[in-house]
Amino acid sequence: MKKLINQVDRVVRESLEGEALAFPHLVKLNEDPLFLYRADAPRPKVALISGGGSGHEPLHGGYVGRGMLDAACPGEVFTSPVPDQMVEAGKKVHGGKGILFIVKNYTGDVMNFEMAQELLEAEGIPVKSVLVADDVAVENSLYTAGRRGVGGTVFVERIAGAAAEKGADLEEVARIAEKVSQGSRSMGMALSSCTVPAKGSPTFELGDDEMEIGIGIHGEPGRERMKLKSADEITEMLARPVMEDLGLRRGEKVIAMVNGMGGTPLMELFIVYRKLHQILEAEGIAIARSLVGNYITSLEMQGASITLLRADEELLQLWDEPVHTPALRWGV
Amino acid sequence: MKKLINQVDRVVRESLEGEALAFPHLVKLNEDPLFLYRADAPRPKVALISGGGSGHEPLHGGYVGRGMLDAACPGEVFTSPVPDQMVEAGKKVHGGKGILFIVKNYTGDVMNFEMAQELLEAEGIPVKSVLVADDVAVENSLYTAGRRGVGGTVFVERIAGAAAEKGADLEEVARIAEKVSQGSRSMGMALSSCTVPAKGSPTFELGDDEMEIGIGIHGEPGRERMKLKSADEITEMLARPVMEDLGLRRGEKVIAMVNGMGGTPLMELFIVYRKLHQILEAEGIAIARSLVGNYITSLEMQGASITLLRADEELLQLWDEPVHTPALRWGV
Repeated sequence: MKKLINQVDRVVRESLEGEALAFPHLVKLNEDPLFLYRADAPRPKVALISGGGSGHEPLHGGYVGRGMLDAACPGEVFTSPVPDQMVEAGKKVHGGKGILFIVKNYTGDVMNFEMAQELLEAEGIPVKSVLVADDVAVENSLYTAGRRGVGGTVFVERIAGAAAEKGADLEEVARIAEKVSQGSRSMGMALSSCTVPAKGSPTFELGDDEMEIGIGIHGEPGRERMKLKSADEITEMLARPVMEDLGLRRGEKVIAMVNGMGGTPLMELFIVYRKLHQILEAEGIAIARSLVGNYITSLEMQGASITLLRADEELLQLWDEPVHTPALRWGV
Repeated sequence: MKKLINQVDRVVRESLEGEALAFPHLVKLNEDPLFLYRADAPRPKVALISGGGSGHEPLHGGYVGRGMLDAACPGEVFTSPVPDQMVEAGKKVHGGKGILFIVKNYTGDVMNFEMAQELLEAEGIPVKSVLVADDVAVENSLYTAGRRGVGGTVFVERIAGAAAEKGADLEEVARIAEKVSQGSRSMGMALSSCTVPAKGSPTFELGDDEMEIGIGIHGEPGRERMKLKSADEITEMLARPVMEDLGLRRGEKVIAMVNGMGGTPLMELFIVYRKLHQILEAEGIAIARSLVGNYITSLEMQGASITLLRADEELLQLWDEPVHTPALRWGV
């Protein structure tokens, strides 16, 4: 295993320490239990909390800041965080207007966020949850009942975060989050595996000329293992199921993300984006906004995923609101 | 070779097409000769042009936009651009106040930018050049007489770009660029090689437990091949030579970059940043601003580099000026 790490059991903690040192004006680290939270004091706004296994950076810690998350609760690599983290994060960032949990659909995450919700509610703090289950590749998976939550999470965190920042109440922020979650679909592929530090060997093996279509963000099996194809063919194989599942029609607009799995050069992601743009354009669908880069990764895995969100004026206006986090930044 | 590409000879062009499609409000693509330029019309400001071999994305195309470059001229992967690209880019973006070339110190780049400078000057356009040669690892290298130009380039493009955007004249922009170039030092390391598409096999081989310290951004040999060490030890091995060469003293400030080579998870870069922060703090040197991420890469190479820039109030104020490019964005 070749990684820039010190001790396997300190990878997550040291990485978060580094992030907090690099962005002291944006995020602070709570040491015990472990979570990142906004450096500016809680304001009377709905607080957004997400979290999940580490290894998907910049998700979620990179999205803590103005116009996005108030706290991010990291588990060990590819392992759910425990309820205590979300409970303490909730108490820390609650600004008196309730909390929205953004939960990727993995069995452990769902269970632990539910437990945290009950514990916070028992203390009189209103909590709502939105589940993200946008991966069209498979209906059930290794860690999942139902679809896996992947790239759509970035869109939910950004857009619900904008609504909360603008002062929407919990009901309204939850409605927006649900709308984004329902309107997002994703599919990914891998050229190579990743290696979880605690395991020390690759999660799966792929032949020198093979790829896996429909891979999960933990290296879970996808739809099909096949011979490597061209970037244009691969983009077709990812984009079509996403477009069909979303039921996109001529004249509609989307927010599109071409996401790298961690080990893929930006150059290749732009080649995928180019084809995605061509496919959508030919169908009369406009990309109104886009992200191209590493936004939800699987350690050093090589590969890419495509996420599309059906966009209307409400979502686009929220998208354009200022955001200021370690990993996403625009506006004043 | 496992890459998300279509044809080897179309990698650079299709990638640039994708970038222009993804950021139409920021960059436009000139097809022949190939270069990216600012989407907003030339204004009466000093125009900044850089370029070099592709494969280092987001450098340089990702830095075209407000407060940074006016044009970026890409060669094939790890191959210099030709003079015609810089000449035509120069004519396109010249706003009547002259042009500054930002040139990484590689023999081919230096020669081709010099030729372009002569050709533009022959047409009556004033051109100055700044050379970036910040890599302390080796004095001469495979493609270089003198030190290689690496991470300091990002700092030169950003800070000279801010000065130009504020209306400084060519003399002044060149002075600032030179100051940043002189005040920057870098060193990098690799855990793995990269594969140039046209070659199809890894540039070099590293054993399963080996790393290369002092690597160049094209996989050129560095100072030493050795057994893999901990992230903290590696950070020491990169940071100390940089600090010593720069002659940093207690009480000074730096702008610091922990850069990924393309295939390294952000999580690991934060672990390196954490240690860099500790090393500098112990020496009484403050990190005034920082970047952590993929800013100057070597395709899918795994590894990292550290760049430090001696910072004073003049440079920090320029650093904080608004920048709006595909890869760097802050301010209004």
